[in-house]
Amino acid sequence: MSSIGIVSPQTMAFAEPLQLQSGATLRDYHLMVETYGTLNADRSNAVLVCHALNASHHVAGYYADDPKNVGWWDNMVGPGKPLDTDKFFVIGVNNLGSCFGSTGPMHVNPATGKPYGAAFPVVTVEDWVNAQARVADRLGIAQFAAVMGGSLGGMQALAWSIMYPERLRHCVVIASTPKLSAQNIAFNDVARQAILTDPDYRGGDFYEHGVVPKNGLKVARMIGHITYLSDDDMAEKFGRKLRDMAESGSYKFGYGIDFEIESYLRYQGDKFSEYFDANTYLLITKALDYFDPARLHDGDLAKALAVTKAKFFLASFTTDWRFSPERSREIVQALLSNRREVTYAEIDAPHGHDAFLLDDSRYLNLVRAYYEQVWQELAKEGA
Amino acid sequence: MSSIGIVSPQTMAFAEPLQLQSGATLRDYHLMVETYGTLNADRSNAVLVCHALNASHHVAGYYADDPKNVGWWDNMVGPGKPLDTDKFFVIGVNNLGSCFGSTGPMHVNPATGKPYGAAFPVVTVEDWVNAQARVADRLGIAQFAAVMGGSLGGMQALAWSIMYPERLRHCVVIASTPKLSAQNIAFNDVARQAILTDPDYRGGDFYEHGVVPKNGLKVARMIGHITYLSDDDMAEKFGRKLRDMAESGSYKFGYGIDFEIESYLRYQGDKFSEYFDANTYLLITKALDYFDPARLHDGDLAKALAVTKAKFFLASFTTDWRFSPERSREIVQALLSNRREVTYAEIDAPHGHDAFLLDDSRYLNLVRAYYEQVWQELAKEGA
Repeated sequence: MSSIGIVSPQTMAFAEPLQLQSGATLRDYHLMVETYGTLNADRSNAVLVCHALNASHHVAGYYADDPKNVGWWDNMVGPGKPLDTDKFFVIGVNNLGSCFGSTGPMHVNPATGKPYGAAFPVVTVEDWVNAQARVADRLGIAQFAAVMGGSLGGMQALAWSIMYPERLRHCVVIASTPKLSAQNIAFNDVARQAILTDPDYRGGDFYEHGVVPKNGLKVARMIGHITYLSDDDMAEKFGRKLRDMAESGSYKFGYGIDFEIESYLRYQGDKFSEYFDANTYLLITKALDYFDPARLHDGDLAKALAVTKAKFFLASFTTDWRFSPERSREIVQALLSNRREVTYAEIDAPHGHDAFLLDDSRYLNLVRAYYEQVWQELAKEGA
Repeated sequence: MSSIGIVSPQTMAFAEPLQLQSGATLRDYHLMVETYGTLNADRSNAVLVCHALNASHHVAGYYADDPKNVGWWDNMVGPGKPLDTDKFFVIGVNNLGSCFGSTGPMHVNPATGKPYGAAFPVVTVEDWVNAQARVADRLGIAQFAAVMGGSLGGMQALAWSIMYPERLRHCVVIASTPKLSAQNIAFNDVARQAILTDPDYRGGDFYEHGVVPKNGLKVARMIGHITYLSDDDMAEKFGRKLRDMAESGSYKFGYGIDFEIESYLRYQGDKFSEYFDANTYLLITKALDYFDPARLHDGDLAKALAVTKAKFFLASFTTDWRFSPERSREIVQALLSNRREVTYAEIDAPHGHDAFLLDDSRYLNLVRAYYEQVWQELAKEGA
């Protein structure tokens, strides 16, 4: 299996205002988009891949001037890969409010001439889906072969099936949930507090002051990172290993680093704080918290999913304690009660929530088999 | 059942230097101590109760000038309560380095004439046990009827059974663990990072600057608090309830509080940051991280526990994901392989780690029955 190779993002500008769920309106905006493979003549082979918290439109391949910057789902998307770009036309879209090129908090607010900062409107999963629908319009895609995503990306796929039931044949929802639990929201709120109380956050206007709330972002990322890994996986990878065993063989009796897990997490936190935008972090965690399609149906998810027309593929991972298999099963139950066609796989994998991004042959082969079916279905209809 | 009523703490000063595990020495120090009930003539009915992260010597009863300040284990300790002060003489000791009166980071370092701050030596569970042993000496107690604790307090009880096997007849270890996991350490380290990077921490010397790293402490406490509650319990108590439903019935689309769980956790964090010391938080989380009696025995807990002579009572709670029942079972297994007498209860309780402090009749009745046995044993020997 080879990578899709060199890819290039493109900017799509939208002049028509976007009405947001909050009541606010985005006057105009642009989105970063990346595509892989070729759209067929009847425009039926497009698959939209939706990203999670810290990912982007850069789903697969690498950039000519930055060959180490490989797309976040390069093991999933490419020629001969589970989502095969020799067959499908795959689209990655950086969501509004993100910090990888699409209009977001660090861009200039046309109303003030200064960066939006915390004044960038809080967007929701549904707002993202509406913005993605315009990308589909622009590309002339009336119906996706599939909309697919993991985690927060899976929420977008699910929202697509509700908001635009005619516009996707298949909905692929990996390691996701129909809504956050109180514990999920709690972790998000602690992360937000760490950012909001960092003096360098400056009420969200840190851009103008030439500072970045790195400490807050670091703590936020460390918290997040713990929830992405499984307890068992952490135990196996790090356990209670000391970082500098050779040096002392003992504890340091200070507040620096004793254990490898500390070193690993702080390093991850530092790295993240150097490339991720604090306002984006706040905004995306709120989008996660707010997602709850059953909310307008008295909490009845089956009612919320009654309008769907797609076929569904769901997968969850046994050691994922962020969005446990039970949450995926809730979606499956609600779909089955609506007599939707559902394929569901509960993968026995040790890597927690992160498993959806990793190489697990059972998981990847199941997705491959599902897309093979999608492809044969398309071929049959085209014939 | 009535409370023990009005109680008074006492200060015990120790002039003999205390050698610490880190290699440092505490030249002199004092400990806050509280006792309940009456020491019998042969001094055989004493029970030492060890405290966890944010508790103190104030185990039961209340203060004459502060009747709302009820001891942290008042439902466990008192006349007619599971640990019955009509029978037992119960001792609470505030650990060294804590912030409730015993010598700690906010006290004056005799070497510099200024508050210790971050220069207060990092103490370990074993150091605390050595300091507690001197309290026993001072009170003329050669052997405790029992040493008891929950969580970090349970670690102290376990350390007692290893370090002073002749000095306790029973060892009562509730909701504890023989060592922290990588995930436990990770949560502690994020909490420490939040404090250490708060500009008001000032390298630990915030006392002199008249500031307190409240934001860091708040975030640290919020993280800790999430790990003390079970996912299910949070779901039941808070779920996705909005705080101001009546006001708007909708999301606020900002970075303030939407959900009740956010309101609850921020409130708990704020409250904690007003009374707890930041250096103590760092120090106590390090004591937690370092505890690992098997470490000097190639990780073999059974070897570490081979020297013990006590009888053991252990209890764990099914929904405790901080120190899960599995961790208690490790201790039980290691004890059984040494042919120690062990009573173990796995309590089906919804409240997570916090369950060890709450009223659960099955749990409290088991502890009561165990102490009844301890009492009868003492009576038989005394006869």
